[in-house]
Amino acid sequence: MPGSKSTAEQYAAYKLKMQKIADVKNAIAVLGWDQETYLPEKGAGFRGQQITTLSTIAHELFTSPELGSLLHDLHNNPELDAVQQKNIHLSLEDYDKNKKYPATLVAELSEATNQAYHAWIKARKANDYNLFEPALARMVELKKQETAVLGYNDHPYNALLNEYEKGANVEMLDTIFAEVKTALSPLLEDIAKQTPAQRDFLHLHFDRDKQWKLGIDLLKEMGYDMNAGRQDISEHPFTTSFNPLDVRVTTRIDENDFSNMTWSCIHEGGHALYEQGLPTEQYGLPCGEAASLGIHESQSRLWENNVGRSLNYWKFQYPRIQALFPEQLGNVSLQQFYKAINHVQPSLIRTEADEITYHFHIMIRYEIEKGLIDGSISTKDLNKTWNDYYRQYLHVEVPNDTQGVLQDIHWSHGSFGYFPTYSLGSFYAAQFFTTAQKQVPDLDASIAIGNYQPLLDWLRNNIHPFGRFYTSNELCKKITGNPLQFSYFLDYAAGKFL
Amino acid sequence: MPGSKSTAEQYAAYKLKMQKIADVKNAIAVLGWDQETYLPEKGAGFRGQQITTLSTIAHELFTSPELGSLLHDLHNNPELDAVQQKNIHLSLEDYDKNKKYPATLVAELSEATNQAYHAWIKARKANDYNLFEPALARMVELKKQETAVLGYNDHPYNALLNEYEKGANVEMLDTIFAEVKTALSPLLEDIAKQTPAQRDFLHLHFDRDKQWKLGIDLLKEMGYDMNAGRQDISEHPFTTSFNPLDVRVTTRIDENDFSNMTWSCIHEGGHALYEQGLPTEQYGLPCGEAASLGIHESQSRLWENNVGRSLNYWKFQYPRIQALFPEQLGNVSLQQFYKAINHVQPSLIRTEADEITYHFHIMIRYEIEKGLIDGSISTKDLNKTWNDYYRQYLHVEVPNDTQGVLQDIHWSHGSFGYFPTYSLGSFYAAQFFTTAQKQVPDLDASIAIGNYQPLLDWLRNNIHPFGRFYTSNELCKKITGNPLQFSYFLDYAAGKFL
Repeated sequence: MPGSKSTAEQYAAYKLKMQKIADVKNAIAVLGWDQETYLPEKGAGFRGQQITTLSTIAHELFTSPELGSLLHDLHNNPELDAVQQKNIHLSLEDYDKNKKYPATLVAELSEATNQAYHAWIKARKANDYNLFEPALARMVELKKQETAVLGYNDHPYNALLNEYEKGANVEMLDTIFAEVKTALSPLLEDIAKQTPAQRDFLHLHFDRDKQWKLGIDLLKEMGYDMNAGRQDISEHPFTTSFNPLDVRVTTRIDENDFSNMTWSCIHEGGHALYEQGLPTEQYGLPCGEAASLGIHESQSRLWENNVGRSLNYWKFQYPRIQALFPEQLGNVSLQQFYKAINHVQPSLIRTEADEITYHFHIMIRYEIEKGLIDGSISTKDLNKTWNDYYRQYLHVEVPNDTQGVLQDIHWSHGSFGYFPTYSLGSFYAAQFFTTAQKQVPDLDASIAIGNYQPLLDWLRNNIHPFGRFYTSNELCKKITGNPLQFSYFLDYAAGKFL
Repeated sequence: MPGSKSTAEQYAAYKLKMQKIADVKNAIAVLGWDQETYLPEKGAGFRGQQITTLSTIAHELFTSPELGSLLHDLHNNPELDAVQQKNIHLSLEDYDKNKKYPATLVAELSEATNQAYHAWIKARKANDYNLFEPALARMVELKKQETAVLGYNDHPYNALLNEYEKGANVEMLDTIFAEVKTALSPLLEDIAKQTPAQRDFLHLHFDRDKQWKLGIDLLKEMGYDMNAGRQDISEHPFTTSFNPLDVRVTTRIDENDFSNMTWSCIHEGGHALYEQGLPTEQYGLPCGEAASLGIHESQSRLWENNVGRSLNYWKFQYPRIQALFPEQLGNVSLQQFYKAINHVQPSLIRTEADEITYHFHIMIRYEIEKGLIDGSISTKDLNKTWNDYYRQYLHVEVPNDTQGVLQDIHWSHGSFGYFPTYSLGSFYAAQFFTTAQKQVPDLDASIAIGNYQPLLDWLRNNIHPFGRFYTSNELCKKITGNPLQFSYFLDYAAGKFL
């Protein structure tokens, strides 16, 4: 058609629009980072308002009719290359999804989240679930409405799962958590027969500045580029990315707990390496974004657990740590240290759980979320339901609501369907790491001499550069030859803990 | 008219639009703050892009026809109170001015600024003005075009002055700088006859951490609210505000120079107290913004010089500083210290100049800018012109371009008309402080015992709460009974330095 724009021009226009939206979203991320690190106390109110304004602008830009018609024009256009086609396809999916939400539901969800968050804070303080229950009930009601808006096959919870992990569904998770239960329960019993590890030396006094310096060193050694990122202190550790050349991590330091900072650094470092490895030239486009939460978590867990809690890792690192903390660790052998950091024991708090029992914590949340959304579980007396699950799966008695049903922030944020990605992350990590061990010559040996470059190279070749080009499952098959299989994790766990 | 909106509804709509624009602008300010404090090196490119995108959005929002018709509808509406009327009036002025700029000129200015900045960096490195000259010539050409777009009376430079200091013009500045020349030149000669102060102890080694802590203490004592602000390190000290409840300052520390951090803290503290004192309920509206650059600078200079370099201030502070740095200052008397920090001597670099010679630096820049804009001075050989001025006014020989015409960043940013506000700030400061001394009982005595609250109260009653409600000159008349008069500064300077 004379006068009409060429495909290349249209694609350039699409890219420009997406990059502008990304600029706004990344400005929001900067405001969020600042909020968690440096914001003065009294600035919180205006900051919230500034974030809301920018979020509205980003939403308006992303649902603009101009973007919509560009996407429809370009969809399935054979002149585009594969990556371009994928970008258009995914952007159109995102666009259509965004367009589905009625303005009333968006407003109600925003309002409910605000209310639920404050109710949760209040309930935690008072150690009383009943103060949270009405807000949670309202939230569940709205999430049910959301599943209807989004649409789903088989189970309404699938609609929510899909928001965090495209392709995940109840069928797949039921199968995998059945395996968790079947396989990990006896493993747990066997572990319980072992002599408990001595752990008190991990809770001696570890100087703040020395810990800080150690964390920075560990990050740098992993390959985290400090010229394209930085570490700061926040109440809860997190990773945030403004683009692959500015990916920031935070940590926290407890002078009476060696573990707290150490593995949070390695964990966030794993997330950050993924973000730093995303393709810069795809900035603002789906193929420049992380594949899914599960894949993101696979990167953090792979570094934290498969590497950072391995004997090989500490063969190299431990003498240095001993030299740094001679009073605390000078008389503790590598074997003692390794056993201590891999101690398995059922406990109350998810974020403090070991590699094995962790998945029971997730399974409980999964069962509850599924039940809340399909109506088989009620928010009424949910603290009792919670405690029953903990008794049944982990054989622990929950002493109060704060250490029970109120321990996680997620539901107050309306994040239903998020928790399962934590377990999926561990299972992907095991499958990926096992594959890397097969494909990279002397991978374990190189880790044992403190050389992580071969591992990072493998991740940078096989996982990081694709963004959302492959779904989690496609990526998993491409790399490992198989879809996600729990057996990898089981083999890893049995090998390590028995 | 039935169905039409009430004045209150229209004003609320105006306010909401302005606050959203402020949210975007303040997000840009956060991005800018981060850029100067914590941004990792490689993040600079994307950060520039993010700032450009948000600037474009802010500009689009502020030039939207909806805002325009609201402003026209509300202008001179007698149902509005005085502050509301002033907000509408000033917003409409700003709006009309923004609308005047042709898109081509905006783009050309942006491009020229980019080029000029990089040329300036390059020229400074090579110590060669000629590398900057073509970019500066282009910039001057565009600024001339800008004066035509903005319109002016009498002299084209007035259009540019007006951007930074509404109401300032060549006639007023010619008069005031003639007084500077007439009155300060003999003063300088008299001062030159005095025995030079001993200053070497200011350049002993002053520990970084101790200096940092001192700076924080000085800020807090001034009344700077650390729960509504914070201090960080940057290459050049600055103050930035995201709203009155989040006003941040930065400083730099030179371990071999006690002065560098000390007075930068007090100076930025003065700016910050002004921003923290602006009315929160006027967020986003003209009456919530600083009156002008000159008034802003009056606040920083008043604290830095009239207070922070006064004998009364150091009567209280000096013993504490001596206790903090006993090796360096233990044997230096208060009088010696006071003389050292008020040493007057012509020099090459504006930012290092004393309170008296500073205004010759500004006068030179003023004369040059005025000449560049009216065509009586050429960018060709401007380094020679510069050196001639320094020889004539300050009797110093400029050894090279970097220490001469290339020393300031302003022209590379296209900031013509900015420099004079520095001198105006000092002159307003003298006039305000003299008035405060008359109006506040025992002001000097309270400063001499480290109690700055009476001064802050006076500033908070007389200057801070009005925002742009009064112009600089109206404010000056209201507070002091007179328009800006150089005699206040002269009396202050003569009293202090002779």
